[in-house]
Amino acid sequence: MTAAHPRLSLNQATIRHADLATALQVTEGAGIGAIGLWREPVAAVGLSKAAALMAGSGLRLSSLCRGGFVTGRENRAALDENKRAIDETAVLAAAGAPGSAPVLVLVAGGLPDGDRDLIGARSRVREAVGALVDHAAGAGVVLAIEPMHPMYVADRGVISTLGQALDMAEQFPAESVGVVIDTFHVWWDPALNEQIARAGCGGRIASYQVGDWITPLPPDALLARGMPGEGHVDLQSITESVQKAGYRGDVEVEIFNEAVWQADPTWVAEQTAELFDRSTGLTT
Amino acid sequence: MTAAHPRLSLNQATIRHADLATALQVTEGAGIGAIGLWREPVAAVGLSKAAALMAGSGLRLSSLCRGGFVTGRENRAALDENKRAIDETAVLAAAGAPGSAPVLVLVAGGLPDGDRDLIGARSRVREAVGALVDHAAGAGVVLAIEPMHPMYVADRGVISTLGQALDMAEQFPAESVGVVIDTFHVWWDPALNEQIARAGCGGRIASYQVGDWITPLPPDALLARGMPGEGHVDLQSITESVQKAGYRGDVEVEIFNEAVWQADPTWVAEQTAELFDRSTGLTT
Repeated sequence: MTAAHPRLSLNQATIRHADLATALQVTEGAGIGAIGLWREPVAAVGLSKAAALMAGSGLRLSSLCRGGFVTGRENRAALDENKRAIDETAVLAAAGAPGSAPVLVLVAGGLPDGDRDLIGARSRVREAVGALVDHAAGAGVVLAIEPMHPMYVADRGVISTLGQALDMAEQFPAESVGVVIDTFHVWWDPALNEQIARAGCGGRIASYQVGDWITPLPPDALLARGMPGEGHVDLQSITESVQKAGYRGDVEVEIFNEAVWQADPTWVAEQTAELFDRSTGLTT
Repeated sequence: MTAAHPRLSLNQATIRHADLATALQVTEGAGIGAIGLWREPVAAVGLSKAAALMAGSGLRLSSLCRGGFVTGRENRAALDENKRAIDETAVLAAAGAPGSAPVLVLVAGGLPDGDRDLIGARSRVREAVGALVDHAAGAGVVLAIEPMHPMYVADRGVISTLGQALDMAEQFPAESVGVVIDTFHVWWDPALNEQIARAGCGGRIASYQVGDWITPLPPDALLARGMPGEGHVDLQSITESVQKAGYRGDVEVEIFNEAVWQADPTWVAEQTAELFDRSTGLTT
């Protein structure tokens, strides 16, 4: 087994049907040094066991997915849930190998049912980040606001551009609030390069994820992501911009794709390592 | 038959399977005063007959769809085709009732096959507009650059935001190059209100179209549009912004939706008139 790129991290969503132990094992088996975890498979074994598995794996944690979903008009329960997610992030990052990133990915959430007030929903996300930032700081965790593709604005994420995510993040200290740059979500943005530079200057890049855009868009738009290099995104050029902006953390591959999910996770992990090298051009 | 809103225009794509004569007839029959035509049904009867039908209908022309598709690395044929489209726009607008708008909608086109250079494709659109502007000015036609939803950037339209369309349009005289504001394409944009104001100040709003965003996104993302009021878009607030920006032209309803296409065009035209009133809140 050749080692994968030293900065590659496999996001667990790419091998969605593997349980935590399997996910850690196939990641390590493919020579990949880091993993991005999801809360559900962590919860399935319990946090202490998950931390023990993580510690035993020798893998770095690159992020935990996900907090957020704070666009509701009544957010108390969602905020409590986010505080628990922050605590989990701290525990899992501490259990991970040196270089682990205590990063909690925040997906904003969509419009509440029957609600057309997009501006209002967006302002509630900002308020929620404000309500969580002290808890995050106390736990040493970075809240990473993820701009999502505009096609998800109604039902998943009302933060639609990197610029908008930065406008929000910059209202808080950089050690506690950053952004996720996921190529699948932001590749189309005419302002992408300048916003990546801005994010880098301010030390706001908490996570970088690579995924591709394939056409035709599959029937379920949520599962539209292609493996790196399979689609239309110039991953090499975007990765270069992120590199130039000073980001030196792990680079996650997070693919929501039914065919990928149906494949053997060992094979998917190996494929990921190979495609990552070929498509990102990342040398250091 | 109650008259429809005096500024409503039915875009022919909403009743896609009707031929030109039928489209004009059901539009008039629904008490709608204007129509947005498409080149294909015009070509099916020939330009002179189309102009005669238009003149006989008493309807205003609100726009002709569509020119553009100029992202190819070799654009000569596309530019010639666009010049023909400009000439057709002038003829059809002259044949329409007073208040007709000589507006040619430009859909940029997507990435060329196997090409990941989005910045290059976008710069070729700017060059193409530059190559067409004199011909448009000579014909008294406005080229209306249409920003398309970012989910179409790979395969249909590389101009993704109103701001980007304005950046391009503003390099040319306002009497020859403007923009289309279609709610379906731009509603998600965090910068929407300021860009609508900017477009209005510069006299760049050549066309305003209302369509809704429905969830879940239908399997064919191209046919994802909902009738006004059926989805998540705050049409009333966006229409108010466009109105405040000084736009007083016709407002098109352009819906790509398989179920709408299968329905009786007479019923669709009447429904459009009713839903338009209820959802846009447009009083003048």
